[in-house]
Amino acid sequence: MKKNDAAMVCLSGGQDSTTCLFWAKKQFKHVEATCFNYGQKHSLETEVAKRIASEANVPFHLLDVSLISQLDSNCSLTNSSIPMDEEKPENSYPNTFVPGRNMIFLTFAAILARSKNIFNLVAGVSEADFSGYPDCRDTFIRSLNVTLNLAMDEQFVIHTPLMNKDKSEVWELADQLNVFDLIKGQTLTCYNGILANGCGHCPACKLRKAGLEKYLARKQKQFQ
Amino acid sequence: MKKNDAAMVCLSGGQDSTTCLFWAKKQFKHVEATCFNYGQKHSLETEVAKRIASEANVPFHLLDVSLISQLDSNCSLTNSSIPMDEEKPENSYPNTFVPGRNMIFLTFAAILARSKNIFNLVAGVSEADFSGYPDCRDTFIRSLNVTLNLAMDEQFVIHTPLMNKDKSEVWELADQLNVFDLIKGQTLTCYNGILANGCGHCPACKLRKAGLEKYLARKQKQFQ
Repeated sequence: MKKNDAAMVCLSGGQDSTTCLFWAKKQFKHVEATCFNYGQKHSLETEVAKRIASEANVPFHLLDVSLISQLDSNCSLTNSSIPMDEEKPENSYPNTFVPGRNMIFLTFAAILARSKNIFNLVAGVSEADFSGYPDCRDTFIRSLNVTLNLAMDEQFVIHTPLMNKDKSEVWELADQLNVFDLIKGQTLTCYNGILANGCGHCPACKLRKAGLEKYLARKQKQFQ
Repeated sequence: MKKNDAAMVCLSGGQDSTTCLFWAKKQFKHVEATCFNYGQKHSLETEVAKRIASEANVPFHLLDVSLISQLDSNCSLTNSSIPMDEEKPENSYPNTFVPGRNMIFLTFAAILARSKNIFNLVAGVSEADFSGYPDCRDTFIRSLNVTLNLAMDEQFVIHTPLMNKDKSEVWELADQLNVFDLIKGQTLTCYNGILANGCGHCPACKLRKAGLEKYLARKQKQFQ
């Protein structure tokens, strides 16, 4: 296998990373998936990711980085006693932000990938994401890419196919990749841990639903 | 406490990081130490670090990142079945290199520090280190510093007081900081897990001893 034929996808089992998994399967001959247990309240997440990897027929790795939730207890995704921000507070991030999370995820994914001679990494981050988490920005990803290469003296390439897509365009990509139904019915995006269409009222559900409606309206228009 | 009055030191219990701990105590009003269990063969390391932190009267944190040793089994520091390289192989790193180690350490240290409102990080890496590990280079540290700041939208500063010092100069700094005897008698640098002067024949012991002799010769000359 040539160096550029393989990719490691960070897979959470949500809409975005699952779309990336199937995008990667079109781009690379060999694809593997890495999922992270970081102490999230909803352990269903990792089970969903495992099932999706199995359906996509790619090797699945589950890494335990729950240390991350022990270091900072101010996050509502890992601390049940904190009520989740439903809106972004002015001048700061919602308490669903886990500081350093994407940096830890991608660094461990890179170490694992390197041991398997895989140097393409795929992450489903997007700048169009509602909350403006700093570790979803393109600048951060590019800086991280350089740092990873300097740390290990390698030539990783981080791919972020969703970086400039809003949710309606992510639905469109899923449709183009022929996994629209799989994404709609089998992924878990909801902050309250409910599969597919979710609870309907958390920020992630609202975003997913608005994107879906926008995409379907656009699609219908095309066929009129 | 002002933002720049506190620092988090990555402490392994070796000569370099211990020297950095006492350097930091001179520079900052408040200092804490973070030590990492990464599946190293010699668990004595973390005990030594804890004892040194106690002697320096600084809070001590032990973080378990042993996941790192499960991802890449080609390292002699974490895999007992691999004999340790005593010399640097041509065109590659010795098998004492743990890929991504310093990046994982400093990222977790930063996440922990941030939760305590500490934004100075101190690491005992040095470019003069015998092996030329890529993650000890100044370029890597500067790139990591930027990436950390972008990841969390903060202003961390990574300090590397030993970056351009050879081992004899590290001994000299210890002497200036009045911890020469503590460093000589209580730190653990030896790859074979023997305290103070160590086994005498592993690369770390040879380097430590040569540096000590060089420094003592220089010092004696000054007083002649």
